[in-house]
Amino acid sequence: MTKLSELGEFGLIDRLASKVGRGKEVIKGIGDDCAVLDGDDFYTLLTTDMLVSGDHFNRDWQTPRQIGWKSMVANVSDIAAMGGYPLWALVSLALPDDVDVEYLDSIYDGMISASEKYKMEIIGGDTTHGDILVINIVIIGRVEKDNLCLRSGAKIGDKICVTGDLGKSWAGLDLLRAGVDGYTDYHLEPSCRLEEGRVLAPHVNAMIDVSDGLSSEVMHICKQSGTGAVIDKDKIPVSSRTREAADKLDKDPYQWALSGGEDFELVFTIPESKIEAVSDVPYVIVGDITEKGTYLLEGKQKKELSGGYDHFRL
Amino acid sequence: MTKLSELGEFGLIDRLASKVGRGKEVIKGIGDDCAVLDGDDFYTLLTTDMLVSGDHFNRDWQTPRQIGWKSMVANVSDIAAMGGYPLWALVSLALPDDVDVEYLDSIYDGMISASEKYKMEIIGGDTTHGDILVINIVIIGRVEKDNLCLRSGAKIGDKICVTGDLGKSWAGLDLLRAGVDGYTDYHLEPSCRLEEGRVLAPHVNAMIDVSDGLSSEVMHICKQSGTGAVIDKDKIPVSSRTREAADKLDKDPYQWALSGGEDFELVFTIPESKIEAVSDVPYVIVGDITEKGTYLLEGKQKKELSGGYDHFRL
Repeated sequence: MTKLSELGEFGLIDRLASKVGRGKEVIKGIGDDCAVLDGDDFYTLLTTDMLVSGDHFNRDWQTPRQIGWKSMVANVSDIAAMGGYPLWALVSLALPDDVDVEYLDSIYDGMISASEKYKMEIIGGDTTHGDILVINIVIIGRVEKDNLCLRSGAKIGDKICVTGDLGKSWAGLDLLRAGVDGYTDYHLEPSCRLEEGRVLAPHVNAMIDVSDGLSSEVMHICKQSGTGAVIDKDKIPVSSRTREAADKLDKDPYQWALSGGEDFELVFTIPESKIEAVSDVPYVIVGDITEKGTYLLEGKQKKELSGGYDHFRL
Repeated sequence: MTKLSELGEFGLIDRLASKVGRGKEVIKGIGDDCAVLDGDDFYTLLTTDMLVSGDHFNRDWQTPRQIGWKSMVANVSDIAAMGGYPLWALVSLALPDDVDVEYLDSIYDGMISASEKYKMEIIGGDTTHGDILVINIVIIGRVEKDNLCLRSGAKIGDKICVTGDLGKSWAGLDLLRAGVDGYTDYHLEPSCRLEEGRVLAPHVNAMIDVSDGLSSEVMHICKQSGTGAVIDKDKIPVSSRTREAADKLDKDPYQWALSGGEDFELVFTIPESKIEAVSDVPYVIVGDITEKGTYLLEGKQKKELSGGYDHFRL
């Protein structure tokens, strides 16, 4: 018997990837934010996420509308990370006995609002019973062939950039968990960087969204690109609200930024010479792509980057 | 507060369908076995199913390999019902603490075997933690434009046919539930009628697969086609094995056939003049498409057809 935690979330993904082939028309299978299928004029993007009550959301402090909204945004963020745009969604729900029609309507309202914001449509799904509330979202999107951004494109010398403040979602979650007042909006009703992804796509070498913390995302890029990276801790953007929450809770806000996740910002790598081309997008340079090793620079100390959020290693 | 059971599974699907629009490129949204997207040379088919431990499978009597296998087959069956063929699958799993790597590998093995049998590939997915085992499968397939079979195409006068024995899955389930020996293979390791669907597609007016029992499937066809139907109970094919199980358990095998489901046979409607064209496929004529009303003929008695399996009305 081997415990799942011994492999961890990403080990399990690699395990499945190693078992399946990659046939014609499949540009990218398991191992990026989306699967990528070939097409005549564009690539088709496919992403899926399962969200389970108690693990991915908490019905005590998230309204059904917020649960529906966030489940869609998390998936749109994966499309954004490929440089693409969403078109259609499939929504599967397992509903426990204490969910009534009004509660379900509110979940749908949240999903439909997000669909309207990101200009996509719910075209199918499955509604069934289960002992706990489970949501599975699939989004089908597209990207122009020249604009496809993979995790694997980083080049030595690239600057590593993020599109905005990190740690803000986990700050809210820890406030809610502790029952302490503070800024929780971003955890409850996040948005993602779809427009920014579209602007960045023609210029960047690699891109990924922040689902599991900066540390994890940078390590994904390095693993897929065969490179290393150094992140400068002092440069990681952490908002004053997040610092306030950290003070209240006696936590390290950089821990949230590095290992929290759900910030739905984009992390991208880009040659320094091209940075001016993306100046319409908010970005902060947080580090460099190097030849090998993944490190965090803390003042003069250089530490190994450690993994981000892992659902099997809590 | 309105209980979900007041609307039932299909009422809930209609409710979502009424909230969302149907934009360009969407040939068919919510309300058939698959969503259908337009394309240059073919239609793209998309189907999704969520399977929850305790509701859709039972870890006490289904091996992980069988759980993985059946979850794929159930989705391929939806593609078959549209006349199409599967190409790619996305697999999401929520795994509880008592699942170990070997158990997960067996689930994958079942999924991969089914993928090989039906000539498709797993190209993506999500692996996460949850308090109970949940599987969500998405299959992406294709169908030639002339071959698309919708539920809505039935014509008055069509014969209603099924491709094989009904009630066989529920017979096995009830044997397993009761701990009584008997034939359970079909419940545990079903197959679906993909090849038959391909042969039928150019000739039939409407098609659906048997997920929730013949009664439910015929009512779906009638609702979408604006027709009625009469099913002749004596003509419903029920195997000797299923009858044996019914005898052992003191159950009505026709109840299983009409309201059990998971037989993954195809129900299709076809003008009598075209039946010869599909003679390569096993089929049994069980009734007729009529102008209105959905009835079951039992000897000389004509009863209203009642709904099939509903996850919210157990």
